[in-house]
Amino acid sequence: MAGVGPETQMRFSLGCELHYRVRQPTTFLLNVEAQGGAQQQVLAEGFEIAPFVATEPQRAVQTANLYRRFVLAPGDYTIRYDARVALSPQLHDPDSVAEVPISDLPLEVLPYLYASRFCQSDKLARFAWRRFGSLPRGHPRVAGICNWIFDNVDYLAGSSDAVTSAYDTFTLRAGVCRDFAHLGITFCRALGIPARFVSAYGWQLKLQDFHAVFEAYLSGRWYLFDATRLCPIDAIVRIATGRDAADTAFATYYGDIEDAPKLVWIEALDAADANAEWTTAAVSATAC
Amino acid sequence: MAGVGPETQMRFSLGCELHYRVRQPTTFLLNVEAQGGAQQQVLAEGFEIAPFVATEPQRAVQTANLYRRFVLAPGDYTIRYDARVALSPQLHDPDSVAEVPISDLPLEVLPYLYASRFCQSDKLARFAWRRFGSLPRGHPRVAGICNWIFDNVDYLAGSSDAVTSAYDTFTLRAGVCRDFAHLGITFCRALGIPARFVSAYGWQLKLQDFHAVFEAYLSGRWYLFDATRLCPIDAIVRIATGRDAADTAFATYYGDIEDAPKLVWIEALDAADANAEWTTAAVSATAC
Amino acid sequence: MAGVGPETQMRFSLGCELHYRVRQPTTFLLNVEAQGGAQQQVLAEGFEIAPFVATEPQRAVQTANLYRRFVLAPGDYTIRYDARVALSPQLHDPDSVAEVPISDLPLEVLPYLYASRFCQSDKLARFAWRRFGSLPRGHPRVAGICNWIFDNVDYLAGSSDAVTSAYDTFTLRAGVCRDFAHLGITFCRALGIPARFVSAYGWQLKLQDFHAVFEAYLSGRWYLFDATRLCPIDAIVRIATGRDAADTAFATYYGDIEDAPKLVWIEALDAADANAEWTTAAVSATAC
Amino acid sequence: MAGVGPETQMRFSLGCELHYRVRQPTTFLLNVEAQGGAQQQVLAEGFEIAPFVATEPQRAVQTANLYRRFVLAPGDYTIRYDARVALSPQLHDPDSVAEVPISDLPLEVLPYLYASRFCQSDKLARFAWRRFGSLPRGHPRVAGICNWIFDNVDYLAGSSDAVTSAYDTFTLRAGVCRDFAHLGITFCRALGIPARFVSAYGWQLKLQDFHAVFEAYLSGRWYLFDATRLCPIDAIVRIATGRDAADTAFATYYGDIEDAPKLVWIEALDAADANAEWTTAAVSATAC
Repeated sequence: MAGVGPETQMRFSLGCELHYRVRQPTTFLLNVEAQGGAQQQVLAEGFEIAPFVATEPQRAVQTANLYRRFVLAPGDYTIRYDARVALSPQLHDPDSVAEVPISDLPLEVLPYLYASRFCQSDKLARFAWRRFGSLPRGHPRVAGICNWIFDNVDYLAGSSDAVTSAYDTFTLRAGVCRDFAHLGITFCRALGIPARFVSAYGWQLKLQDFHAVFEAYLSGRWYLFDATRLCPIDAIVRIATGRDAADTAFATYYGDIEDAPKLVWIEALDAADANAEWTTAAVSATAC
Repeated sequence: MAGVGPETQMRFSLGCELHYRVRQPTTFLLNVEAQGGAQQQVLAEGFEIAPFVATEPQRAVQTANLYRRFVLAPGDYTIRYDARVALSPQLHDPDSVAEVPISDLPLEVLPYLYASRFCQSDKLARFAWRRFGSLPRGHPRVAGICNWIFDNVDYLAGSSDAVTSAYDTFTLRAGVCRDFAHLGITFCRALGIPARFVSAYGWQLKLQDFHAVFEAYLSGRWYLFDATRLCPIDAIVRIATGRDAADTAFATYYGDIEDAPKLVWIEALDAADANAEWTTAAVSATAC
Repeated sequence: MAGVGPETQMRFSLGCELHYRVRQPTTFLLNVEAQGGAQQQVLAEGFEIAPFVATEPQRAVQTANLYRRFVLAPGDYTIRYDARVALSPQLHDPDSVAEVPISDLPLEVLPYLYASRFCQSDKLARFAWRRFGSLPRGHPRVAGICNWIFDNVDYLAGSSDAVTSAYDTFTLRAGVCRDFAHLGITFCRALGIPARFVSAYGWQLKLQDFHAVFEAYLSGRWYLFDATRLCPIDAIVRIATGRDAADTAFATYYGDIEDAPKLVWIEALDAADANAEWTTAAVSATAC
Repeated sequence: MAGVGPETQMRFSLGCELHYRVRQPTTFLLNVEAQGGAQQQVLAEGFEIAPFVATEPQRAVQTANLYRRFVLAPGDYTIRYDARVALSPQLHDPDSVAEVPISDLPLEVLPYLYASRFCQSDKLARFAWRRFGSLPRGHPRVAGICNWIFDNVDYLAGSSDAVTSAYDTFTLRAGVCRDFAHLGITFCRALGIPARFVSAYGWQLKLQDFHAVFEAYLSGRWYLFDATRLCPIDAIVRIATGRDAADTAFATYYGDIEDAPKLVWIEALDAADANAEWTTAAVSATAC
């Protein structure tokens, strides 16, 4: 792991199936498709609404998030997405991954320093400096933040909901992957480290659901972190990046619907991968 | 006011003076300079830190916000910015300014639909639909939101602080310009109308301070709104746009400082302008 | 309904059944038994823990709430309470029921003027005065508060949880009986009217659950109000009174348990009662 | 300090002066007078409203709090209270002061177990058990709570306001005496230890203001604790006890007033006392 090197590629089959009963014409904004790029190649994919509705994906320039927007008439629908994806994350020596002085940050990274809907870094600054202010700067400091979260917050399904924020999680000391990511982002920003939210398909996640991790901007790249320790950090298939979960909802709708439980799946395509060890390297997995 | 037409140009002299006592080396991120553009021309300007520190402005591509970043060594500093600016906002017939279906919104506008730090549109959706759902869509609906805020929230200096959010203001029913803007943004987003925050020099504002208004995305442009009714909406000199006040702080710092009261000023340069009537037109004042 | 008169007595059969799996010795504080008194007579009752654990009820002097306290060893338990109760509420002409000047309130009533865990009357004062300040004082004003809640908040099962407060409900505009009661209490206190929470068996409540209403102190008595309009207000079998739901939890425990869905029931014992019309009278139903 | 013994008596001169401009008839509820009792004797006192308004103190049975209630007509008023008080707190060996099983608590103590306006013990339970669950039970555990607060929260004038709760303080990690007391109460209740708020005149407090401490119910008595370490805990002259600051406001009013800065003072009457050392004993100072 001297300097930077690509990991052996891993391939996954993944997807999701969503069920909606639409009661009046409803506009949907969907964001469930895997991003494409040099380090995350989409080998094959399918997207289908049944009964049929024509849609096409649109790619946001800054984030590479893929959106589908469509209006559904009243009726029952099944939306299914599946894909095969190959990951080639970059591995780096954690001790060589440094913080970037605020005066050197690219301007487009600045918004990831600011407080956002679920990441009130303005309110948690005093604690963050007391607890993490003296840790070695760079990748080890963010890893230290993740360790603190893992040690002090219980992963507990059902302990939070769609309006739970880092401010709540810090006090309640329980949450799910989304809450762990929000808290990590919040501490980073409070310390002057840009950080952002990543929604994903998380390999080996026991729950039948999407996963969430976070990225910190260090040494001129975005590095992945997962305080839940539930999925190998180099086996994260990225759906969307944003300032927090408010930017990366897998489905937003304006209308009147009822939804049934969704299915989410991801499997390694090569037998060997299924035994892959967790890496201790710093993992960078995106160009933007 | 048939269709679209430029208003007679208005010219202003404006600026601010900030005072800091720095106790240990502190990184500053400053955003007090007027944006430049076709409808807001900066005729002349000066920026100075005393004692002297070299800085230069950097312009964010997406928002046109101007940032200065610098590190101050311990000591006492005065930062002064002044400029002469000419405004040429576009005036439109409010009844011709319509909402844009979510499926037609440019992708880069989507983030202004989502909840943000101070604008919890996810929590205020039920109220927004009950109260504003049946208003005529488009500019009149956003104007209706502003009227409701003006009628139901007291403008009261000192009633809020840097962590007050729209959620609080809705309940407390008191706030300042920043809170009025946050509440307007929140209601718009809840209804599916993209909205964003604008920090500004506000002509005729009685307080010695920066002003804040908001913009809603309608008919393919951003339209200005000010629920406080404190400043003519076509005489707003824009500093920054962002998702809310978290993105547009005039000064962010990482270090240890003490600040003294700041000065903020803006004056109309032509005698005639000082008698300008408030417009009832829809006002659009920026290209991005 | 001239002045004051007892209503015809109504008799009910009611009870509840609770199921717990106890994993380590756990202290329980239970408060599910109907209060006894002149206007709510307990004709017969039974309380049983299976497997058997000896307990006896204790009556709080100030509130007449009945508590059972016991420690359960690890194991599976069913707790069952059932009773027959006769209600004789007092009916009064609403227009004759007046507010009491704060200077004349009994000292023991003062705490019901103050903000409590779920009733942040300090934060909702501005709205309360704006909206209800000019209503006719006394019982009609509190009825006006109930009407406002009914008109502006959606009764929606699952829209709130154990930490939802009046502050949240006011903004979210959705809740269940407990939230409706908290909001009513909050507005009353903000206006200087003492108000308190009542947990109860609510006849004709469609949900299989305990009910919650509130009382306001007027004309020297406590008067019942129910902003949900789900149960006849003169057919409320009182369990506990307190400052809010924090004081009247049906079960509090210190330990490690798992609970299964509970059963709660109440039925009118006389066929005629089942057709009882809702009263428009002011209803007072307790001596303390 | 074997077992229990009265400390040498200490005598204090204390008082406060409040200034109000009343704009319309306003009802006041004042609670600034020192409680009387066996361990806190009021040797002499005076209360005066200028211009003259007749009032008399009323004593709440359960708490011994002294209230004055009166209505002021428009005008400018000065309210002055002064007293001489002798304290005889009981000192106990901390290691002998134990927790009381919930099943043995007097019924009137139960409300001090429940969450209240500023003490959301329901939300901080997980943290409290993780951090304090394994400390030696009894007085040392509550002392451990106070030490944690002192070590982790900054005492910072102006960092909180009248709506700041323990939930906020836990996250913000800054506050004043009232916030320190709220946090201590919250942790105690979360652990099943009844706790309550005490407003007081605090000898040697540097600020010109009222003080706040808290009491925990242990070994059948209420024991004083002060996580701020600003005043000797055996030199606290009690004004009011309540569930939190919502119950013990020194002044509540219903009307329209403006207030000028208040004066608060307390001085030891005997020269020797001014050198009194802080006690390490468990201090109990009230009969109810």
